[in-house]
Amino acid sequence: MAERLVVVGGDAAGMSAASTAKRRAGDALDVVVLERTGWTSYSACGIPYWVAGDVSGPDALVVRTPPEHRKRGIDVRTGVTATAIDLGTGNVTTRAEDGTGDSVGYDQLLLATGAKPTRPDVPGADAPGVHGVQTLDDGCRLLDWLGASDARRVVVVGGGYIGLEMAEACVRRGLDTTLVDLAEEPMRTLDADLGRRLRVAMEGMGITVVMGAAVEGFDTDDGGRVRAVIAGGSTYAADLVVLGIGVRPRTALADSAGIALGDSHGVRVEPSMRVSGRDEVWAGGDCVEVWDRVAAAYTHVALGTHANKQGRVAGLNITGGDAVFAGVVGTAVTKVCELEIGRTGLTRSAAESAGRDSVSATIDSTTRAGYFPGAEPMTVRLTAERRGGRLLGAQIVGGPGAAKRIDVCATALWAELTVSDLVDLDLAYAPPFSPVWDPVQSAARALLSDVH
Amino acid sequence: MAERLVVVGGDAAGMSAASTAKRRAGDALDVVVLERTGWTSYSACGIPYWVAGDVSGPDALVVRTPPEHRKRGIDVRTGVTATAIDLGTGNVTTRAEDGTGDSVGYDQLLLATGAKPTRPDVPGADAPGVHGVQTLDDGCRLLDWLGASDARRVVVVGGGYIGLEMAEACVRRGLDTTLVDLAEEPMRTLDADLGRRLRVAMEGMGITVVMGAAVEGFDTDDGGRVRAVIAGGSTYAADLVVLGIGVRPRTALADSAGIALGDSHGVRVEPSMRVSGRDEVWAGGDCVEVWDRVAAAYTHVALGTHANKQGRVAGLNITGGDAVFAGVVGTAVTKVCELEIGRTGLTRSAAESAGRDSVSATIDSTTRAGYFPGAEPMTVRLTAERRGGRLLGAQIVGGPGAAKRIDVCATALWAELTVSDLVDLDLAYAPPFSPVWDPVQSAARALLSDVH
Repeated sequence: MAERLVVVGGDAAGMSAASTAKRRAGDALDVVVLERTGWTSYSACGIPYWVAGDVSGPDALVVRTPPEHRKRGIDVRTGVTATAIDLGTGNVTTRAEDGTGDSVGYDQLLLATGAKPTRPDVPGADAPGVHGVQTLDDGCRLLDWLGASDARRVVVVGGGYIGLEMAEACVRRGLDTTLVDLAEEPMRTLDADLGRRLRVAMEGMGITVVMGAAVEGFDTDDGGRVRAVIAGGSTYAADLVVLGIGVRPRTALADSAGIALGDSHGVRVEPSMRVSGRDEVWAGGDCVEVWDRVAAAYTHVALGTHANKQGRVAGLNITGGDAVFAGVVGTAVTKVCELEIGRTGLTRSAAESAGRDSVSATIDSTTRAGYFPGAEPMTVRLTAERRGGRLLGAQIVGGPGAAKRIDVCATALWAELTVSDLVDLDLAYAPPFSPVWDPVQSAARALLSDVH
Repeated sequence: MAERLVVVGGDAAGMSAASTAKRRAGDALDVVVLERTGWTSYSACGIPYWVAGDVSGPDALVVRTPPEHRKRGIDVRTGVTATAIDLGTGNVTTRAEDGTGDSVGYDQLLLATGAKPTRPDVPGADAPGVHGVQTLDDGCRLLDWLGASDARRVVVVGGGYIGLEMAEACVRRGLDTTLVDLAEEPMRTLDADLGRRLRVAMEGMGITVVMGAAVEGFDTDDGGRVRAVIAGGSTYAADLVVLGIGVRPRTALADSAGIALGDSHGVRVEPSMRVSGRDEVWAGGDCVEVWDRVAAAYTHVALGTHANKQGRVAGLNITGGDAVFAGVVGTAVTKVCELEIGRTGLTRSAAESAGRDSVSATIDSTTRAGYFPGAEPMTVRLTAERRGGRLLGAQIVGGPGAAKRIDVCATALWAELTVSDLVDLDLAYAPPFSPVWDPVQSAARALLSDVH
């Protein structure tokens, strides 16, 4: 009789694992996927672009539908929520959309329950009209609300990646858009002076940016629907509120089952994606903690690329493989209008806060040779250990073509290269692509005299 | 009394060294630069874009003029050709443009004489109308010729970087353009099947591409001016011929002085850029050999980015520094119309020819998430050692945004990463920038099962 793998959650990590395992094991493994929504294998990162109109609809964001997965022999059960796990008996209790209860036994279990948008703990936070954007259903609900409510005024709460992308999406739809955040500048994963450039770019698009304002509550109308955000003592009228203040691992199910969580509330897993101390239980994607190789600490990073890699690793190992997810270095990229932002590793301020004996240098260069048409300004900041010069982090802010260059720094962090190594690298040069000194290498040069 | 550094050649390597040395040593070092043209510190790589009309004129390609260098205390002597070096007495014999001879003594000597376009050894190769493009003066002469001769038909000989860029420049000027090359496909630094895509792109722009045709001679008119290229038994009418069959180190001066050259005819230097066995003689830029870290061999690569780095290293070491030029991995990038090409390390065919026990994988992906507007096709080929999986090389061909991603592979080659490391890297992901599996990582994944 075939073994059974039960996967809880049918997005990136869950379906990558299910597909990898099924492809390898064939008939020797029954693979059952429990997915509470009607969607599988979708790009939640694409939701802001769908809202903006860059993408036609949710179907475009789906890599593989439930019927497509079923055709490959995976028993995908949509609209089914896992409500409890019994680790002792190896059983998952489920509830269908019509309320029907059921259960399914497993030999191996993979938790891929994802993350959920943080809701501020203030009055009105659950009012209709306050939307997160984590699943395709969230996207559908938000767009339905926009259509049905004739919304004109949007307040985005939170100036991180999702907040920025959603604010841009809303202003591009012609909505009156305000972004509210507690921090000094948007994008706290950048140093504040670089985040300021994002604020200026957002303001240039017509977004009202309110920084240093804590959300105190949400006003509602007689019908209980949101009508304003109260933040920093002021009231911002809102027909729609978008939450972008981060996500938390969705781990209540794991927690109830007695699975250990880390400080970030994510499931703590081994590099194999196995849950520590449980041979038959695995986890991956936005519900787990990851090891940050630069910070040398566990952290929570919700990102589709990690989820896909982790799902693949879990799927390999569930079927007898020997793969590892080797951690992250904190790379991320986004853009506001034409201004691109890339970052990896530690910022200057994070390195200082962590007490690392570090130095930083910031240079202004251009994306192409300065004389070449389309050359755009590009700023690079590198942070490195003062002794020995090992790279600790990089930030790039600039025009089209700037941000993805962060990958050189991400690769250098991975390989523990020094700024001296960075200066030596043989990076691609031609006038349409780069100045003769690549901007990343110019920044490394500027750091050389400060490291010993 | 101050020591004197004499630099022969005032472009990238020469002026980087002169500037670095002067900045460090100040009045303790007289720096004399002998430059046979009237230009210093220019981007020869920009000439094709000047010809195409992307760049307004030669001045735009000059980073720093002779007067600007002089203001910084460097004695730049333009229109002065070094004709002989006496290593015994430490003396350089010179000839000015008016024929006047002179000489200048040195304590330290830097050779930065550059490279010159290879001319095929066939009748008519020196005829008026046959142009190389290595110096700004070459560019001026070519454009003067175009203006004065009312040229309509151009034949570009050679399908490497310069040949491709010049062919595109000419067709964009509205000229009837033919490219002739001996090889099977353009760009021999790529595997032929990838080079074929360049040919198709060039043909799509209206360039006539003739491959597999050896140049047998140049026909001239009664005035001795070129009027046709004879290649592969056919005759191609030409009002202008552009040579793009590579360059050779310009080392006759060094050779006459008794300085040792390598197999590529470039000056053989130590990583410090010092000429082996001569404490006071240095060399850098297109006239030297470089160490290829992947091929583990000396080679000749004429590229401004290397010249700048080498000049900096020489300038540091001439003034008591301890810097090294650590070699190259063979990274290069260019584009034909909207088709971008990046390459680094060994191609599949080069690895096979070299007898390396290697494996390759090729994948088709997109520059952005497939659903994102502006996503363009992008092909990645990786080559790695079969045992252990160490990366040996990468080639990328694709739409806008594809080619500069080669830098991840260049960095990985530098750090001697394996394809397994490549799969693990934390590269930047967001839908406007990349599919959720970065194309380079998709290619690495495809290779994993072939390496052991």
